[in-house]
Amino acid sequence: MPHRKEAGPVGLVKKKFFTFCEPPHEMVLEGGGRLGPITVAYETYGKLNRDRTNAILILHALSGDSHAAGKYSADDKKEGWWDATIGPGKAFDTDRYFVICSNVIGGCQGSTGPSSVNPATGRPYALSFPIITIGDMVQVQRHLVDHLEIERLFAVAGGSMGGMQALQWAVTFPDRVLASIPIATTAKHSPQQIAFNQVGRAAIMADPNFNDGEYYGKAVPKDGLALARMVGHITYLSDDSMHEKFGRRLRGKKTLGYSFNLDFEVESYLRYKGDAFVSRFDANSYLYITKAIDYFDLTLPSGALAKSLEKVKSKFLVVSFKSDWLYPPYQSKEIVKALMVNSVDITYCEIDSRYGHDAFLMDEGEMPKIVKNFLENVAARNGIAAPAAGA
Amino acid sequence: MPHRKEAGPVGLVKKKFFTFCEPPHEMVLEGGGRLGPITVAYETYGKLNRDRTNAILILHALSGDSHAAGKYSADDKKEGWWDATIGPGKAFDTDRYFVICSNVIGGCQGSTGPSSVNPATGRPYALSFPIITIGDMVQVQRHLVDHLEIERLFAVAGGSMGGMQALQWAVTFPDRVLASIPIATTAKHSPQQIAFNQVGRAAIMADPNFNDGEYYGKAVPKDGLALARMVGHITYLSDDSMHEKFGRRLRGKKTLGYSFNLDFEVESYLRYKGDAFVSRFDANSYLYITKAIDYFDLTLPSGALAKSLEKVKSKFLVVSFKSDWLYPPYQSKEIVKALMVNSVDITYCEIDSRYGHDAFLMDEGEMPKIVKNFLENVAARNGIAAPAAGA
Repeated sequence: MPHRKEAGPVGLVKKKFFTFCEPPHEMVLEGGGRLGPITVAYETYGKLNRDRTNAILILHALSGDSHAAGKYSADDKKEGWWDATIGPGKAFDTDRYFVICSNVIGGCQGSTGPSSVNPATGRPYALSFPIITIGDMVQVQRHLVDHLEIERLFAVAGGSMGGMQALQWAVTFPDRVLASIPIATTAKHSPQQIAFNQVGRAAIMADPNFNDGEYYGKAVPKDGLALARMVGHITYLSDDSMHEKFGRRLRGKKTLGYSFNLDFEVESYLRYKGDAFVSRFDANSYLYITKAIDYFDLTLPSGALAKSLEKVKSKFLVVSFKSDWLYPPYQSKEIVKALMVNSVDITYCEIDSRYGHDAFLMDEGEMPKIVKNFLENVAARNGIAAPAAGA
Repeated sequence: MPHRKEAGPVGLVKKKFFTFCEPPHEMVLEGGGRLGPITVAYETYGKLNRDRTNAILILHALSGDSHAAGKYSADDKKEGWWDATIGPGKAFDTDRYFVICSNVIGGCQGSTGPSSVNPATGRPYALSFPIITIGDMVQVQRHLVDHLEIERLFAVAGGSMGGMQALQWAVTFPDRVLASIPIATTAKHSPQQIAFNQVGRAAIMADPNFNDGEYYGKAVPKDGLALARMVGHITYLSDDSMHEKFGRRLRGKKTLGYSFNLDFEVESYLRYKGDAFVSRFDANSYLYITKAIDYFDLTLPSGALAKSLEKVKSKFLVVSFKSDWLYPPYQSKEIVKALMVNSVDITYCEIDSRYGHDAFLMDEGEMPKIVKNFLENVAARNGIAAPAAGA
């Protein structure tokens, strides 16, 4: 084992594309729709080892994308969304592992989605895009993994919707995953979680610019999408962290405005987050991806999660956060119990974070260390070699 | 004391009106606005005793009104919003107490609000209506209580925003309240609570029919108001009660629709609740009342709640519900602590209900009994007589 280095950045990275299911091929989706060709936008960090056994697939959440780490250019203001965990010496140690992250199907950051041009019509799919599921996202990722000539992934990992994909990978491809790390997630979306997503969809669809999804090249349903994001943001934070972050502090003044302008810092924060989201996300993708999340129910078809997890072969690290009320720890515990019924080798951690659901993105403390140690242990016990230095 | 009867209905009731601050008088509001004349819609149940000491003022929540109990006609399908607690032999026992409930100022059920005609212009106030506060609501109620020639209320009671008014009464008019019963409420609105209200207001204001509030006589901002209500409804229920009430049950079919139609029962329930609300509530009132709630902060001006409660003379019953995540028990405990610092005679109950915030309206078990016993004890110790039978 090489000397431990200080954790560092992955440096400059590049978005790549892989296209499959070119005509006459099509992918048949879980909901019955058909789609092709399908392009996947992805990034990789680190190197494959000689046996091609050190690949980790990172799975993003609702508003994420393939840009999990690093910067595209030195001028970029922000790193990828999980940069805190991916890099040399970090949890997903790019000195040891080959890290892959792809944008989900249905997304709007380079993978085929409702904003992509349908080659059959020359126009964006919009709502003619077929309904997709978490299972479909994983099938598309499997095509990418095949393309990269990786027989078995060392690990799959993600939070929130990414955690659903991590679970789905272990169920659908038990022989192709050595370790699965679902974080801050659930095995089936609850009615409360569905309800919040429904409000977001209803806000988008009620926007006069929505126009049945045919808004490309015109004014976009920005009010609706911003509202959806605002609701989402409240659910990502904890009551506690909102007290800490905003309290009842007023926005740039000392007294209440006694008007309908924004008075409180929390209001301007949410408004800013909502508006900023509109510039980087497609409203139709929001519809498709939230629907995929709402449909997610690993207990099907039997209704018993333990039954659905019978064929799982991977080791598991399940992580939840105490103050996460959107994906509360009890949902992770249901996964843990069903895995234990099946004698799966499992580690469970409930982290005492105050940051709510967002903790899976923000936590720079315990979570990355727990992930790092788990991966090192699994790698050591399974003879997963680091890539040759300088190779 | 008369023999205990079975609890029963209050029977047919009638909405009454009281108008004050006729020209040249005006009421100066906390935010600096001026308003007059002001009409208050109210109802009363039961009878005043000879000393006029048995009056209880019931205070409604965001979407409530003066119709707390009984029916307007035998054909009415629904009783008033707190009928479970108001009536002969019930918690607010109309054989013993004279119960009053009025619609808040800013409301849309008979009291002066943004949908009322401004006599100066002959048109509805709309957004020219002044910003109101919880303190203003209580001042208006005080005018009504004066009109009814009640020097001191036996009790003030309400849940949610009604609880804020119950607190405010005890603070603003310490000599005019014998007992205060704030239920499922807070002494200051938290950033999370403000954020949910902000989303509702943003949804209304983004509705193309909103037209800066000038929609009277035209199409109303129904999509926005329905969205606001949907968000609200999620916060009124608990995760647990949503599991029980809806689970992931599908709406009148056996398989997922793989479309953007409503799939789940929880979705159609929320949609129904949102749409139904539009037919009975005014969007501008929603803006004004949520703003009043967000402004509520009894810790001002010092920042210390105990300081603000120094002059309180009433006895207190504070009630919270364990599964209420919108107004969590810790907020009630902050009230309790600040009252205890001031040696106020206080009883606190955290009820182990599964029904979330809505429990204050739904609970037919412990809460009404606790309220009933508290009131009987205070009445007995203070010689509050029941009205003469048949008087």
